[in-house]
Amino acid sequence: MASFILAVNGDRLNARLKSLGEVGALPGGGVCRLALTDEDRQGRDLVVSWMRELGLEIAIDAIGNVVATLKGEENLPAVMMGSHIDTVSTAGLFDGNLGVLAGLEVIETIIESGINPKHSISVGFFTNEEGSRFAPDMMGSGVYTGDLPLATALQTVGIDGKSVADELNRIGYSGKAPFPNISETVAAYFELHVEQGPVLDEENIEIGVVEGVQGISWHEYTFYGNSNHAGTTPMAYRNDAGLVAAKINVFANELALSIPSQLATVGALEIKPNLVNVIPAFARFTVDLRNCDEALLQSAESRLDTYITEQTERHGLTFEKRKLARFEPVPFNKHLVDGIEASAMENDLTSKRLYSGAGHDAQMFAPHCPTTMIFVPSVGGISHNIKEYTTPEQVTNGANVLLQAVLNVAKIL
Amino acid sequence: MASFILAVNGDRLNARLKSLGEVGALPGGGVCRLALTDEDRQGRDLVVSWMRELGLEIAIDAIGNVVATLKGEENLPAVMMGSHIDTVSTAGLFDGNLGVLAGLEVIETIIESGINPKHSISVGFFTNEEGSRFAPDMMGSGVYTGDLPLATALQTVGIDGKSVADELNRIGYSGKAPFPNISETVAAYFELHVEQGPVLDEENIEIGVVEGVQGISWHEYTFYGNSNHAGTTPMAYRNDAGLVAAKINVFANELALSIPSQLATVGALEIKPNLVNVIPAFARFTVDLRNCDEALLQSAESRLDTYITEQTERHGLTFEKRKLARFEPVPFNKHLVDGIEASAMENDLTSKRLYSGAGHDAQMFAPHCPTTMIFVPSVGGISHNIKEYTTPEQVTNGANVLLQAVLNVAKIL
Repeated sequence: MASFILAVNGDRLNARLKSLGEVGALPGGGVCRLALTDEDRQGRDLVVSWMRELGLEIAIDAIGNVVATLKGEENLPAVMMGSHIDTVSTAGLFDGNLGVLAGLEVIETIIESGINPKHSISVGFFTNEEGSRFAPDMMGSGVYTGDLPLATALQTVGIDGKSVADELNRIGYSGKAPFPNISETVAAYFELHVEQGPVLDEENIEIGVVEGVQGISWHEYTFYGNSNHAGTTPMAYRNDAGLVAAKINVFANELALSIPSQLATVGALEIKPNLVNVIPAFARFTVDLRNCDEALLQSAESRLDTYITEQTERHGLTFEKRKLARFEPVPFNKHLVDGIEASAMENDLTSKRLYSGAGHDAQMFAPHCPTTMIFVPSVGGISHNIKEYTTPEQVTNGANVLLQAVLNVAKIL
Repeated sequence: MASFILAVNGDRLNARLKSLGEVGALPGGGVCRLALTDEDRQGRDLVVSWMRELGLEIAIDAIGNVVATLKGEENLPAVMMGSHIDTVSTAGLFDGNLGVLAGLEVIETIIESGINPKHSISVGFFTNEEGSRFAPDMMGSGVYTGDLPLATALQTVGIDGKSVADELNRIGYSGKAPFPNISETVAAYFELHVEQGPVLDEENIEIGVVEGVQGISWHEYTFYGNSNHAGTTPMAYRNDAGLVAAKINVFANELALSIPSQLATVGALEIKPNLVNVIPAFARFTVDLRNCDEALLQSAESRLDTYITEQTERHGLTFEKRKLARFEPVPFNKHLVDGIEASAMENDLTSKRLYSGAGHDAQMFAPHCPTTMIFVPSVGGISHNIKEYTTPEQVTNGANVLLQAVLNVAKIL
């Protein structure tokens, strides 16, 4: 155990979250700062002004990522913190912003403490994490880590017909900083984020120790049966596409309950002709499967496909399957994950290990350098919504765990 | 066994079906003669002209029902045959028309045989059986049997804004014949009809012996849950309205397979927000339950409701239930049903007992006088469709069974 615990200035951090939330504020509450809009520029300018006040070295690269660094005493790989400040169109004040402003607060706390860290400590915000205006999401971190070609990202045209390159130039955030080889230059990447789910809030736990990001499997199925009279067609003569869709929904749910950490959701569904007394001839629906373990995810996919084949044969249907998305799980660094758990304990905070169900910039870093995340509760599990909320105390708790984790890696105390 | 079998003129009957099918013929095949339109008038005029050629006594009442009678030698209740000649908007040539023209053919056959029946024998067509233009369906037979007030029927406004009374007057079919007390004036009512389902065709059976009309229970359910992120919401924290709707569809199907003669169909279904990665917060769907036994139908309804209550509680949903329709089963006269089976046997035709899944004029008669129906196959089970088809031989078979049944009741042979 450390002999004393350094602590962030929670009031300052919460005040900054509030100030940033006033940029692009929506009339009914919440905020809209879609990537590379005027609102995004104003938000960037505000955060950069705070970085400058601390005398940090600021690097802006060609995709508009901004990284501010407190130089260490030795020439060692940096301890990096970060997230994003772009938002969806009806966002709260915490998603992304918390990770950036808490990183800034951690650096300011270290500066104020008078300690000179051996490792450089940096905080960044990465362009267009949300993907609401330009696809794909996690664009800036993808370019930063070398997974997404810069040219591809710059050529991307948004939902309003404008390109990333033009909009970056327009708002003045097309920089010249080189892209580092992060496997050599980053010792650890930490991202503090709101959970965006109900677990911590429901279970009254202060800190989520994030072990990784779930893998995602999205498929669309279309079933073709026969539409017949609901009163004159005996059960044995039916080819009911709606019934088979229902059976698959129920089966997917049973899969999720029988495979460890498996999630399954039938979110979209349409049947035709959609009349009370006509047997559905057509059903189209999506299945969203998620797991933090790739082998288990593949097992869920395979069991679902077996069931679908069996049921379509049994009910005399034909079907088509279309892949919408497929990502493998991203495990985080075990050593850093243990460190977060220890940091929570040092701060006398309750914690729980969990996986992220949503995508984050951290998952781009994880294959290249030691990476993990810290979650704080989302009240009611609500996110991507103007009602998104995390209490000032929970915000401060998360920043203190982040501080402790950074200090542990930066070998200061 | 009768010592000889009188037989209808199948060619004449099939030719009349074809002629009537030319009135209101659709370009791609099939026919459209919505009730009380010009096409309906032309069809009526044609059938009435055939009735007149046979010298029958014609009665037209105030709802436009037309009944033609061959007077019997004694003052006994009549043996009545009938159906309808109005159609849905994309109909075949057989639904309704067959029962009317086969009745006419039965009478012509009896006249040609030189036999003078003791009972009067009549054939009728009843106004607006389909209900496609004016609700409710089975309007003419409902008024004829006294179940639907004449004034109510006459005031009915159709989908084109015109009233039954005005349209009856316009096409010249508002008559003055009194409505008889059919419990005293009708000894038996027979209706020959196409099955409108797949059973006879699939099982290669020539005659359906109809034991009654199924009861119908239609309800709409609306479920309210919570829409949450499909990736961040553990299975235990979900209130998935779409999943519960699916479970109820599967349960209704299991009910249908476990209760004798039970049918169950979820024909209409909508979920919201209907997005691949969002748990459905809203589901609205219909359940169509049918059974020929009222106690079993009530049991199905009750078991479904118990399951729905249990599942909504289990998944933390609220729900609303709305009745769309509820009709008790209509059993036909056992003695007449046995007679149809015997008539099929006398004609060396295979037969099967079944219940009607669709509504017919006969169900209006059944509570008031001995009633039954005869089904002939619908090729592919198709009806209310321009592809509706029954072969000339099947048509003739049905008319011969009808003839035999009428002769048995009219005590001629």
